[in-house]
Amino acid sequence: MSTLWKSRYAQRTSRIKSSAIRELLKVTQRPEVISFGGGLPAPDVFPVQRFEEACHKVLKEHGALALQYGPTEGYEPLREMIARNMARYGIFARTENVLITSGSQQALDLIGKLLINNGDRILVEAPTYLGALQAFTVYGAQYVSVPVDEDGLLTDQLEPCLRSGPKFMYILPNFQNPAGVTLSEERRYQLISLADKYGIPIIEDDPYGQLRYEGEHLVPLVVLDRDNLRRDNGFTLGNVIYLSTFSKTLAPGIRLAWIVAPGDVISKLVQLKQAADLHTSTFSQFVAYEVARDGFLDQHVKLIRQVYRERRDVMLHALEEFFPHEVTWTHPKGGLFLWVTMPEGIDCQAVFRSALAENVAFVPGDCFYPNGGDEGCRHMRLNFSHSQPEQIQEGIRRLSVAVKMQLHHAHTKA
Amino acid sequence: MSTLWKSRYAQRTSRIKSSAIRELLKVTQRPEVISFGGGLPAPDVFPVQRFEEACHKVLKEHGALALQYGPTEGYEPLREMIARNMARYGIFARTENVLITSGSQQALDLIGKLLINNGDRILVEAPTYLGALQAFTVYGAQYVSVPVDEDGLLTDQLEPCLRSGPKFMYILPNFQNPAGVTLSEERRYQLISLADKYGIPIIEDDPYGQLRYEGEHLVPLVVLDRDNLRRDNGFTLGNVIYLSTFSKTLAPGIRLAWIVAPGDVISKLVQLKQAADLHTSTFSQFVAYEVARDGFLDQHVKLIRQVYRERRDVMLHALEEFFPHEVTWTHPKGGLFLWVTMPEGIDCQAVFRSALAENVAFVPGDCFYPNGGDEGCRHMRLNFSHSQPEQIQEGIRRLSVAVKMQLHHAHTKA
Repeated sequence: MSTLWKSRYAQRTSRIKSSAIRELLKVTQRPEVISFGGGLPAPDVFPVQRFEEACHKVLKEHGALALQYGPTEGYEPLREMIARNMARYGIFARTENVLITSGSQQALDLIGKLLINNGDRILVEAPTYLGALQAFTVYGAQYVSVPVDEDGLLTDQLEPCLRSGPKFMYILPNFQNPAGVTLSEERRYQLISLADKYGIPIIEDDPYGQLRYEGEHLVPLVVLDRDNLRRDNGFTLGNVIYLSTFSKTLAPGIRLAWIVAPGDVISKLVQLKQAADLHTSTFSQFVAYEVARDGFLDQHVKLIRQVYRERRDVMLHALEEFFPHEVTWTHPKGGLFLWVTMPEGIDCQAVFRSALAENVAFVPGDCFYPNGGDEGCRHMRLNFSHSQPEQIQEGIRRLSVAVKMQLHHAHTKA
Repeated sequence: MSTLWKSRYAQRTSRIKSSAIRELLKVTQRPEVISFGGGLPAPDVFPVQRFEEACHKVLKEHGALALQYGPTEGYEPLREMIARNMARYGIFARTENVLITSGSQQALDLIGKLLINNGDRILVEAPTYLGALQAFTVYGAQYVSVPVDEDGLLTDQLEPCLRSGPKFMYILPNFQNPAGVTLSEERRYQLISLADKYGIPIIEDDPYGQLRYEGEHLVPLVVLDRDNLRRDNGFTLGNVIYLSTFSKTLAPGIRLAWIVAPGDVISKLVQLKQAADLHTSTFSQFVAYEVARDGFLDQHVKLIRQVYRERRDVMLHALEEFFPHEVTWTHPKGGLFLWVTMPEGIDCQAVFRSALAENVAFVPGDCFYPNGGDEGCRHMRLNFSHSQPEQIQEGIRRLSVAVKMQLHHAHTKA
């Protein structure tokens, strides 16, 4: 149609393609489908009433100021609140080390823009968060990947990969998307020590850290790194950039997240953000501050933990009840996802097609592997936060029918 | 401080620097300073009450849906409304040709990402919008510039520049930022005809088009282009991508703008936007739709026109009253800005320093020239939308003191 534009696309445009998940999820929006596909928080825990009070208060007290242009760095009281909240997890950052972004996806985009030259290698977990791959790939990233097990990244396989000189590591230590696994404390120390030895910095993406349903909170990488640096020379923020978000604790539709980084990195990110969208919605920031303040966020996170823990347990029980014994799955201690592994010879795309016929959906595992190949074909990602318990029970039952059908096919072929 | 990061910055990072305006405006935030610097709409015309009603209605009627993840393309009823509204200006676009962006700055960033390879030449007006230069420069744009006069871009100087093969033209046809000038109807035809002859597409940026205070609305470039194409082969959208925004008609703090483009261009932009921020705030989009609907936007634009027309007239009268006869200025028929030209030998940066001593601020003209040089040194951009009429009167009086002082210096030196 518009060949004049097409002939003018930049080289990077050829690297992007429509997200497989995006296409899949379109199919699964029929009301009869029970979807474990999206990474959606449960709408029934969004604090709608509190949002309404906050909107009223913000417009009454701040009026036009809440609708005017604002600073690129973000709304100062919100940045201060984030810094205070993080301090309780040992992350001591000054307000000026906090940059508000339009969701964590923008944080990943700005980091890609800041750091990635075409052809640079980025070290990621396999599997890893698809949105990070999308953001980094636009800038020409290549990937080196290290597998995860139930205790997260296999740090004993890290050293040869670090020797190959990746630009940085991208790590999701808590209840990882997609696998739901958590990096153990011992491996956190190993990771920070190896990062230091090879001088390879880390992007620590922590959208789910507060949503822990069992066990003790583990120390963030950014804290271990700081402790490491402090022993040397007293730096307070060093070689880990930390990302988190309000998408899973307040609501994703307001698109509010943040980056914690050393001052000079923040300065550069601010310049890039200014060129990218001037600043994140003033109104969203004022409203989120009013919603979260006076301890509401903490109370609300407790409610979310309770609701999601129940749903996770329902899914785990249903998997025990319905799934054949050759199939295994992770036992996530928090977050939104669990990860199912099927026997060799099973193709998750075939299971996906059978599942759709049974009116149940998930995301096939191969989407989460940066370098494609067969690694992901035996896996599926299941979201347990979005559906009601009775839907989860019924959805897993339906899914077990699809899985058994594919197992039967595989056995027949073999 | 964090040398590990600095050593890893991508090449593009060296192209960005802090915006001169940004730095200047920091200085001018003291309450005693009357600032004609920012491009801020008047907060006194923001429809705060209507926003409050809209927030209430959205959360009552849509509840959690307004806080959940949404489609990258944008909220469908808002896109439909935009398409309907544009049709009254002759811009016939289908909903699927409209992409919601997080402000026009994101539209410029996505267009840069889609189209610009490092070293590509972009044709711009001189002077032009600084934010576009910032967005495009990140992707390695070089600039070819064509001057403007009171009738906009000098189309008779365009042909040699088009022969040099720019990737696209970036044009602000209505009440241009910074000069406040409008491209005449005759030149619009010439521009479209030359674009067609040389096969160079156009980005038409139209943030102020609805804010016309005198004269008749002129036909948008995207419409002329379509008419041109229709004669050939019936295309409905062709070689002009059109941008507009709610920042100047509703409020900038909600960060809502849109791109109108052919379907295949929109598809690519959607993929890039998904990697950049997933989607624009669902809540902002629901609220803006509720604010704008049922004819409110039209009524409100009439009010803004009335308020801004008065302020423009106050500024024009004050310039007549206070400014020396060697100084000239544009007579904008709409928008937010006018452009002052001082005699040769005057340096706008020196005037800026004198002006600050008098507690009045503006943006020095050299910021708006892509290739630096002396072109901009005799100019200043004055915003007339943000200050109250009595402040405008007093501010122009103060500014005249600074201008006269510099004229005196120049005469003494000469």
